[in-house]
Amino acid sequence: MAAWAERLAGVRGVLLDISGVLYDSGADGGTPIAGSVEAVARLKQSGLKVRFCTNESQKSRAELVAVLRRLGFDISEGEVTAPAPATCQILKERGLRPHLLIHDGVRSEFDHIDTSNPNCVVIADAGEGFSYQNMNKAFQVLMELETPVLISLGKGRYYKETSGLMLDVGAYMKALEYACGVEAEVVGKPSPEFFNSALQAMGVEAHQAIMIGDDIVGDVGGAQRCGMRALQVRTGKFRPSDEHHPEVKADGYVDNLAQAVELLLQHADK
Amino acid sequence: MAAWAERLAGVRGVLLDISGVLYDSGADGGTPIAGSVEAVARLKQSGLKVRFCTNESQKSRAELVAVLRRLGFDISEGEVTAPAPATCQILKERGLRPHLLIHDGVRSEFDHIDTSNPNCVVIADAGEGFSYQNMNKAFQVLMELETPVLISLGKGRYYKETSGLMLDVGAYMKALEYACGVEAEVVGKPSPEFFNSALQAMGVEAHQAIMIGDDIVGDVGGAQRCGMRALQVRTGKFRPSDEHHPEVKADGYVDNLAQAVELLLQHADK
Repeated sequence: MAAWAERLAGVRGVLLDISGVLYDSGADGGTPIAGSVEAVARLKQSGLKVRFCTNESQKSRAELVAVLRRLGFDISEGEVTAPAPATCQILKERGLRPHLLIHDGVRSEFDHIDTSNPNCVVIADAGEGFSYQNMNKAFQVLMELETPVLISLGKGRYYKETSGLMLDVGAYMKALEYACGVEAEVVGKPSPEFFNSALQAMGVEAHQAIMIGDDIVGDVGGAQRCGMRALQVRTGKFRPSDEHHPEVKADGYVDNLAQAVELLLQHADK
Repeated sequence: MAAWAERLAGVRGVLLDISGVLYDSGADGGTPIAGSVEAVARLKQSGLKVRFCTNESQKSRAELVAVLRRLGFDISEGEVTAPAPATCQILKERGLRPHLLIHDGVRSEFDHIDTSNPNCVVIADAGEGFSYQNMNKAFQVLMELETPVLISLGKGRYYKETSGLMLDVGAYMKALEYACGVEAEVVGKPSPEFFNSALQAMGVEAHQAIMIGDDIVGDVGGAQRCGMRALQVRTGKFRPSDEHHPEVKADGYVDNLAQAVELLLQHADK
């Protein structure tokens, strides 16, 4: 381990994925990953800058932060970069009126968005909302548009809940892409715009930042393509085969966030 | 029209798609496409060999034939090539025990298949059965297999019901392919094995056969790749842009099956 830990020198800012790194979500509110509550607290006390960078799109930031605070995490809404607010900004800038295929938990983020006479479709992790009827409606809206625009909040394949692996929005994005012959615009990791907005909010350059996540492609690969370093934790949706991924190699693999923070605090200053 | 109709010379056997060519399906039992009942009857009286080649996977052949006979079509179960029976043969040959994500209407085709302790997933056009829960279950079964096998009954993007365009199984196949990192095996059009089994059943060589369908890729492109000729009808899911498809050009475009049969009876013998 010592060898790669030297790559942590000069880190000034840390981007933390939430699901699978801080906690495993679930119908029961979820379970913190052992050591992560303390690890976040240590990180914040260390003087390193910290920002939470999530593709969570079932919950509004307010709801997500409330869940995490109940589990003991030191986190506030202003520290979270999430795809729903980033999407709202894009909708406003481009005059887009979305048909929304989203979870009720995130609907409040779109309260001020005009959804009349839709000229695009926005999909997020709708969970049970991904019924055939709802998917078919989104499909029909896209097919009726002269220039179909599909915006997807993330493109994750799956995530881990306390009850097991769960299909994520990316699978449904692919379904609509194929059915309509369109390519979705992804808002969220691994999009460079999304990582860069998190870096800006933290006031740190890419080469001074490190991403810690459980998704070898979305977290690690995406951050590295932006010029950041990235660690993969062996929690959440991590699978042993990730360490031999054909395209992405993390700067380091750690058992969990606690170990990542331990190493960061030892090596970041050097 | 006259120019291309000469390409019909020498046709001895006709493969007919069902949905969008004979009728538009729907919750109400569906509606025959104008002139198609008479066109099928004329074709059968002509001495040309006729076979129905469908990707219908919501209904068993028995149920499909019953629906079509109620609408006035001269059709029997033995004349239909459909993906469910073809899939059962593959499952038996390879000792596969499927987890089935299918419509109740087609379940009887799988009555004699062992579904205990699944070692593959079979998906068909499940319609409302494509709930998040059912998709997630299929996903989880695949993720637990050492060598995931996904079999899809067709890979259509969408089809037309009397109520409008409807998402087809191909979209859900793509969702599972992406989530699990696998490639599905497609049983049905445009798979060459499927077209060839229909030709064998009819006793006609590919160069003597013509496919008539409403799907420019699945029907027309697939049949042409097998060495058949193919016509696209301007009914069902036909869209004007199909006539300028970047990859597939039909041997001819006709307003409907009635016109196709009229031309065939004029030119096939020459």
